[in-house]
Amino acid sequence: MNPETEISSDDKVRLPFLMVQDELRQVEATLRDQVRAFDPGVEPYISYICDTAGKRIRPALAALVGGATGGVTKDHLLLGTILELIHMATLVHDDIIDGAATRRQVPTANAKWGEGTAVLLGDALFSHALMLSTEFDDLTLSREIAKASREVCQGEILQTQRRFDLTLTQADYFHIIEMKTGALFAAATDLSAYLSGVPNDVRTALREFGMQLGTAYQIYDDCLDLVGTEEEFGKTLRTDLEKGKLTLPMLYLLEDASDSQRDKLLKRIIDQEALDLPVLVGIADYEGAIDRSLDYSRGLLDQAKLGLSNLAPSDYRDALSGILSYTRGLIGSLRA
Amino acid sequence: MNPETEISSDDKVRLPFLMVQDELRQVEATLRDQVRAFDPGVEPYISYICDTAGKRIRPALAALVGGATGGVTKDHLLLGTILELIHMATLVHDDIIDGAATRRQVPTANAKWGEGTAVLLGDALFSHALMLSTEFDDLTLSREIAKASREVCQGEILQTQRRFDLTLTQADYFHIIEMKTGALFAAATDLSAYLSGVPNDVRTALREFGMQLGTAYQIYDDCLDLVGTEEEFGKTLRTDLEKGKLTLPMLYLLEDASDSQRDKLLKRIIDQEALDLPVLVGIADYEGAIDRSLDYSRGLLDQAKLGLSNLAPSDYRDALSGILSYTRGLIGSLRA
Repeated sequence: MNPETEISSDDKVRLPFLMVQDELRQVEATLRDQVRAFDPGVEPYISYICDTAGKRIRPALAALVGGATGGVTKDHLLLGTILELIHMATLVHDDIIDGAATRRQVPTANAKWGEGTAVLLGDALFSHALMLSTEFDDLTLSREIAKASREVCQGEILQTQRRFDLTLTQADYFHIIEMKTGALFAAATDLSAYLSGVPNDVRTALREFGMQLGTAYQIYDDCLDLVGTEEEFGKTLRTDLEKGKLTLPMLYLLEDASDSQRDKLLKRIIDQEALDLPVLVGIADYEGAIDRSLDYSRGLLDQAKLGLSNLAPSDYRDALSGILSYTRGLIGSLRA
Repeated sequence: MNPETEISSDDKVRLPFLMVQDELRQVEATLRDQVRAFDPGVEPYISYICDTAGKRIRPALAALVGGATGGVTKDHLLLGTILELIHMATLVHDDIIDGAATRRQVPTANAKWGEGTAVLLGDALFSHALMLSTEFDDLTLSREIAKASREVCQGEILQTQRRFDLTLTQADYFHIIEMKTGALFAAATDLSAYLSGVPNDVRTALREFGMQLGTAYQIYDDCLDLVGTEEEFGKTLRTDLEKGKLTLPMLYLLEDASDSQRDKLLKRIIDQEALDLPVLVGIADYEGAIDRSLDYSRGLLDQAKLGLSNLAPSDYRDALSGILSYTRGLIGSLRA
């Protein structure tokens, strides 16, 4: 069966999120409460960011794993809220680094208030999230959350450091995206399972599920940067190559290139000579590098599905599986 | 007695730090260990920042308070290390916001590797510090450290937000500098006392000591920006007014100005018409606004000294008092 047709109806795509609709509403309410914990002079900025950033995938994962491992508790929702705050902080800082002007159809924090304020807003969100993590009264959770947050930052640093670096291997690329995106997804599923007190093998499998889903999602997002449309996705695209960020399709293209093709790619990507992005994307598409990346992403989703096999059957388990289908749907939409 | 003559000999200035020389060496060693905890690709950046940032005042405070309240333990040193990491993170981000090219005679992270990398390095330092805070196995400490870190960020946000804002009152200014500088000094003394398990009144007094010292130090630093010399202090100065940052001397000058003088100041500070900084600083000096600020700072140091009165006499208590004299010495050096 074609995986894209599997989720063709809108209902099926929305299903995993509908499953935890009430829980996500509670996460939203907790986020609002957290906004009010900031200094009155800072609150409006934080509020704007909360209103405009994020699909709440991490809180949804935390809630669904909670449901699938014994029941969603307040702690699962708190975990989701904290991870979402960290995610928002990284988005705010990413937008500075990428010089992005728009996210989800609205101006980014840096576009609205300048880079300086955006740096500090990200910092305040980070600190607040880590402060909130102490409310579990469990140091393991505080430690693992801070660690995941550090992984995200380190992944981003490595990515920034390796721009315009043609020695970047596919292994380097995966190391980077596992840190920068996988870590927070994995924290959502892993720590949610930890909160439920499941056996270690179930926890490990769920951690892997999060890591593979996050990695698959990042590959999709990297392809989106090349072939997506700004109108449809409401964010600044086509920035990776200009910034020298080599993502999986380009690594595949370079791998398959003949010496003379490689020279041409070098001139375009590294020296940015005649960097005509539509042409470069057209070549990557023609050579199959984009489909190959999307296939790799789909493969990760297949592996992730295996991680759900030792969970007892439940609507929540089905919804976790539904998130995989949802991501497949996103991948499919790129090639529609 | 003139407070400046009190500390005229170099030995006396160095005394408080000599007292905890061994402990500060251990803090340096712990910092080195922490550097190695980062990804190998990230480590060299963190190492550079550790080598170039900070006078280690916060670790010195944590160690001295430990010594004065029963003895310096590993935990006091860990506290100092964590607060220093947070301080370094804020310096890295401050330098981005201020567009500063030099700190302690060497290029800043943003000057060396660009703003993007500097944003991420600060984030990684923040996350690492908060991860490290879970090693106390005491949630109160993790929580209070994250809270102090959030205070610093919020103070900075308010400061950035109120640039070129002539409605800024002296109360607003103090609120901001207590958050952005006082909070971390206060965390050093307060949490160090907490670690020693002293009675609440002693802890509160030591918290006040840290807050007043930090605030006094910030006022000195704000005056330094106006009247210091870059050669002597090794950092980019004279940036506050150009960035619309109204510090205590300017608030005093505005307070004392006649209507016509106020109009002139407005034109210079807000519209930056004919902003001749040496002239403006000359006026502030002539009108006594700088001396008045430095006097206020000295007054805070006097109050801080009272906070030491319920500590048993010890060399450590004397060394804490010595830090007040050291700060007085800094203040005095501005008017030498």
